[in-house]
Amino acid sequence: MKLYEMAIAPNPRRVRMFMAEKGLLDQVERVELDLQKGENLTPEFITKNPMKKVPVLELDDGTCIPETMAICRFVEESHPETMNLMGETPKEKAEIEKWTRWIEFYFFLPTGMAFQHLSGYFKDRMEPNESWGLNCKNDVEKFFHKLNKHLADNEWIAANRFTVADINAFCTVEFARVVDVRIKDEQTHLQRWFDAMKSRPSADV
Amino acid sequence: MKLYEMAIAPNPRRVRMFMAEKGLLDQVERVELDLQKGENLTPEFITKNPMKKVPVLELDDGTCIPETMAICRFVEESHPETMNLMGETPKEKAEIEKWTRWIEFYFFLPTGMAFQHLSGYFKDRMEPNESWGLNCKNDVEKFFHKLNKHLADNEWIAANRFTVADINAFCTVEFARVVDVRIKDEQTHLQRWFDAMKSRPSADV
Repeated sequence: MKLYEMAIAPNPRRVRMFMAEKGLLDQVERVELDLQKGENLTPEFITKNPMKKVPVLELDDGTCIPETMAICRFVEESHPETMNLMGETPKEKAEIEKWTRWIEFYFFLPTGMAFQHLSGYFKDRMEPNESWGLNCKNDVEKFFHKLNKHLADNEWIAANRFTVADINAFCTVEFARVVDVRIKDEQTHLQRWFDAMKSRPSADV
Repeated sequence: MKLYEMAIAPNPRRVRMFMAEKGLLDQVERVELDLQKGENLTPEFITKNPMKKVPVLELDDGTCIPETMAICRFVEESHPETMNLMGETPKEKAEIEKWTRWIEFYFFLPTGMAFQHLSGYFKDRMEPNESWGLNCKNDVEKFFHKLNKHLADNEWIAANRFTVADINAFCTVEFARVVDVRIKDEQTHLQRWFDAMKSRPSADV
């Protein structure tokens, strides 16, 4: 299997951390692309992912799977013998999916949009809208607060155990530094959880 | 089970159509909320979904499941005896999840944002940004084009069969009328698929 990625980008990191937790990361050949140079815009890469995004997992039979959570789903379903990260029962699966969606819609996407609209990183291929970027950054700050409140009563984000929801939230907290949002001193529950996440070997892959 | 919804809103419709296709819709008691009147902002509803959105599926044991795809996941996983809509094998599950994410990120969310930012429907609780709304509407038009191209070579959106991806795309095509985006005369493949979808009994629930 090959993983097409840009190592510093947050979505590929979510996949690497997921595969590391499942003990499968060493089964993957990593292929680095430079997105700012447009290495994801070549005709060859577009056949792998018409949406021109990383990560893409290419299987040995040539099947290409784009989209972070679709890759995680494939890895989880094809390796039930490794640690379960997306739920065992219907209720657990639903709770974890609820949280991964909340993290995606109210945290990860606003962070990405704040970054793109405030930094101008992709200004060759989109028109930055500063007031929309500031609106998104405000949503990111609100979600830090929500997570801190949730983690006051919960050791982990979903299902009372470590899951893909923790991976997604952790990668977003680290990503949010690009828009200068960080854990505040008073967000002690979020900090406790973040320190626990940071100490996992998968945080370094 | 109870389904909290606003019948005309697109996300509750996705869930109803999903449950109808699985033959389970009549097992659910429907509870109508008026979002513009703020009936989703009451303390009682916030205990069911802190994000204040519909749909929410409330199980008989009191467990509340918000988020359209988390509800679909729960229904799919707890009723494997009914028609499979989210994939049988790891590869099929990944392909369907890839498409549901593309539809969500590049089609449904831009339609919702274009609506909110161009219509002012929720202007009591958000600040509309017209130029962002127009940007999103442009993305919606692009996705109509992408879908038409994809459906030139594919009877259904994912996995060569009817799946939740078709439900999500169909509900978004209909939703897009609120921002005045419709299937164009030349988008014949999209129209063929849309007509097939429209003729299913689940399109009317």
